[in-house]
Amino acid sequence: MTRRAIYPGSFDPVTNGHLDIIERACKLFDDVVVAILLNPGKQPMFSIEERVAMLGDVLNSTFPRAKIDTFDGLLVDYAVEKKAQAIVRGIRAISDYEYELQMALMNRRLRPDVETVFLMSAEENSYLSSRLVKEIFSLGGSIKGLVPDVVIERMKQKSSSK
Amino acid sequence: MTRRAIYPGSFDPVTNGHLDIIERACKLFDDVVVAILLNPGKQPMFSIEERVAMLGDVLNSTFPRAKIDTFDGLLVDYAVEKKAQAIVRGIRAISDYEYELQMALMNRRLRPDVETVFLMSAEENSYLSSRLVKEIFSLGGSIKGLVPDVVIERMKQKSSSK
Amino acid sequence: MTRRAIYPGSFDPVTNGHLDIIERACKLFDDVVVAILLNPGKQPMFSIEERVAMLGDVLNSTFPRAKIDTFDGLLVDYAVEKKAQAIVRGIRAISDYEYELQMALMNRRLRPDVETVFLMSAEENSYLSSRLVKEIFSLGGSIKGLVPDVVIERMKQKSSSK
Amino acid sequence: MTRRAIYPGSFDPVTNGHLDIIERACKLFDDVVVAILLNPGKQPMFSIEERVAMLGDVLNSTFPRAKIDTFDGLLVDYAVEKKAQAIVRGIRAISDYEYELQMALMNRRLRPDVETVFLMSAEENSYLSSRLVKEIFSLGGSIKGLVPDVVIERMKQKSSSK
Amino acid sequence: MTRRAIYPGSFDPVTNGHLDIIERACKLFDDVVVAILLNPGKQPMFSIEERVAMLGDVLNSTFPRAKIDTFDGLLVDYAVEKKAQAIVRGIRAISDYEYELQMALMNRRLRPDVETVFLMSAEENSYLSSRLVKEIFSLGGSIKGLVPDVVIERMKQKSSSK
Amino acid sequence: MTRRAIYPGSFDPVTNGHLDIIERACKLFDDVVVAILLNPGKQPMFSIEERVAMLGDVLNSTFPRAKIDTFDGLLVDYAVEKKAQAIVRGIRAISDYEYELQMALMNRRLRPDVETVFLMSAEENSYLSSRLVKEIFSLGGSIKGLVPDVVIERMKQKSSSK
Repeated sequence: MTRRAIYPGSFDPVTNGHLDIIERACKLFDDVVVAILLNPGKQPMFSIEERVAMLGDVLNSTFPRAKIDTFDGLLVDYAVEKKAQAIVRGIRAISDYEYELQMALMNRRLRPDVETVFLMSAEENSYLSSRLVKEIFSLGGSIKGLVPDVVIERMKQKSSSK
Repeated sequence: MTRRAIYPGSFDPVTNGHLDIIERACKLFDDVVVAILLNPGKQPMFSIEERVAMLGDVLNSTFPRAKIDTFDGLLVDYAVEKKAQAIVRGIRAISDYEYELQMALMNRRLRPDVETVFLMSAEENSYLSSRLVKEIFSLGGSIKGLVPDVVIERMKQKSSSK
Repeated sequence: MTRRAIYPGSFDPVTNGHLDIIERACKLFDDVVVAILLNPGKQPMFSIEERVAMLGDVLNSTFPRAKIDTFDGLLVDYAVEKKAQAIVRGIRAISDYEYELQMALMNRRLRPDVETVFLMSAEENSYLSSRLVKEIFSLGGSIKGLVPDVVIERMKQKSSSK
Repeated sequence: MTRRAIYPGSFDPVTNGHLDIIERACKLFDDVVVAILLNPGKQPMFSIEERVAMLGDVLNSTFPRAKIDTFDGLLVDYAVEKKAQAIVRGIRAISDYEYELQMALMNRRLRPDVETVFLMSAEENSYLSSRLVKEIFSLGGSIKGLVPDVVIERMKQKSSSK
Repeated sequence: MTRRAIYPGSFDPVTNGHLDIIERACKLFDDVVVAILLNPGKQPMFSIEERVAMLGDVLNSTFPRAKIDTFDGLLVDYAVEKKAQAIVRGIRAISDYEYELQMALMNRRLRPDVETVFLMSAEENSYLSSRLVKEIFSLGGSIKGLVPDVVIERMKQKSSSK
Repeated sequence: MTRRAIYPGSFDPVTNGHLDIIERACKLFDDVVVAILLNPGKQPMFSIEERVAMLGDVLNSTFPRAKIDTFDGLLVDYAVEKKAQAIVRGIRAISDYEYELQMALMNRRLRPDVETVFLMSAEENSYLSSRLVKEIFSLGGSIKGLVPDVVIERMKQKSSSK
């Protein structure tokens, strides 16, 4: 039996915390779909195409089991459509976890056949988030080690082209 | 001595979690005022009139002790004006509770004679919120069992009249 | 309709935090049964008789609505037998609350007709517990203001008669 | 590739909360080893043999992927010896989760190749524990629906043979 | 060796909770820089100049060790530039603390030589925030005792000049 | 003005997490008293003399500002007697912090002139505790990197001399 997990997110941009979880998920599942949420309401830093490209640069060589996709609509409907058994979420701080638990319980109510699986990121990634990375970058701080180098380069290009 | 409690909220729209708390409050108090906050800053889904009407449809037949009202200004001033002994709050997740505790301590400082009473919603309602219901609905998910049927109908009317 | 609440505990000894909650409960219910748990497994500082006597000294004059009783067996069975609508619990720190929530959910499953009501103690009592009072006293610290004066006297008698 | 998970615990006795997690784990892994910790320090209600027997009664017919085993020593060493990729833990309350997170981080430090996977139990099992079940039973409360019927029978036998 | 701490914030306006922390920090450090964040994105109630003036009115006479400054950019870069050993943060509720911990870990990663020091505010200030003070004021509630009197006056002036 | 802090604990044995906090405290205070609690009720692994000796081995060369002492009675009374301005506590997980906050509030009530200062341990030490180290050691796991090497040696001596 092939086991597939969805790892959903905005990935705007992908951080080393995301990669950490993807690596762990790839050891547990036969394939892992890294699914970028199409969220028209939010003003992202990178377009969907740019996010797909960055994830591709980072994942393709290292994690052959990881596939990149985009989705809109309900996450659990997407998971069922993709025939995935599980949704993978990285847990970081406790307050995150509260929200994650609430979403997971609602997702189970909507689709009892999709399990939410929580994985722990490495300690040094436990406080990493795309939002925080963008904030540090905009204030002139170094984000080396927080995101892949290719993301740093693209953020610098974005910034200088403004 | 008659004991009155205020159950404040936006009720945009009323969920089965709200009804759960109202039912529990009605067993403990002689009357329960379900008080809709007039919040001009927020862009609601339903107008105050529509929210009053929906609450009326749902409460009148089932909970004779529940009255519906609207208020603006400070909640504790409203409670004193209504001669209520208590403000009822449903507790759900821990993070909610933190915020609730902070508000309750401030409310006590402003009006020490009004007690905040925390009631526990049923487990299956612990992750329900008006915001989440609206999000699921907008993404095409089923909200059957999350809100009263009359609310589902009105949400569909809203949606189709856009 | 008469509304009765049970306020259960070990009261070994009663603290000002307990009295704070009893006072608040007396404003919300027609009568409040302060119910001392008979716990044969634990080695208490004060015997049941002494705890009843101390509670009597403190409550009788000030809180005419509070009755003192003892119980063993399941709390919810005792509450039903006493025809109580509610169990009152004071909430202090978050970690307490977690445990309280767990017990309240189990109690509701055992007896859905008894509601658990959470009241907030005053800020200055939020970290008070019988255990902490006994520890401070045994280390020679002052417990003035943490427990009623009559309790301090009895703790001193206990201590000197050893 | 075969994927194996360890689900460790005392199972003294197995509850419906444990079964809930085992069922979910069986959907995600090729086989799930339900591993009873041999803990000589603790005074259990049931002997290891009795616990193995009860788990056997409950699991064998329903969950063909679940195997029963016992272990002592370090959990992660046992997991490596069993060639398991993952340790499964059910998350219930937040405070539990704190402890679980701490253990999982230490386990990862000891054996980085074993992943801890957190699964969410059903809401109605979120406050269930072997300890609580034994407490309710000893106080004469009904534990129907909290543990499998075969466990209730054995608990009654234990109790009457004393 | 002179020890300097930074106490950063928006101080829009300064509350008695802020003053509580400043007072405690002044007992532990040789000098305490109260550093107002220049946040162009947010719409404040008071201009930077007004906030500096209000802090000056309140601090100068009472806390000679406290200096007032403004900053933009990364907090840790500012702290290093100011040759401060520590960043002081007041902890209030648990959920606050989660966020504070996350920021402090990131700050340590960016600048390992600046320590974040958490101090506990007095219980009666534990639920105070500039945001809540402004909300209560705008709803006609009394903020006496929540902020210094000079702040109340300035808030009244703001309000009447609109 | 000389500033002194107390860092209290059982140190049975000292871990790398303790050393982490001591190092951070030494940067903020002129001297740091590492104060071992004499707790006659508990059965320690190491005697007070052994704990003093191990701390001496580890601290003397590296942290000249750290002094080692023992105390019994109330911590805050000891701090006042030692003319310390502060008690230093390392914060690890959230649930710890809850307990720490409760103790700190009580300590402030007993002695308002002694401030409790919370410092964050490094991420990789956030789940370390003396209890956990002893448990891993007793189960045959490696504690290399969790405690100083001198402690590992002494634990092995203890273990082999039994």
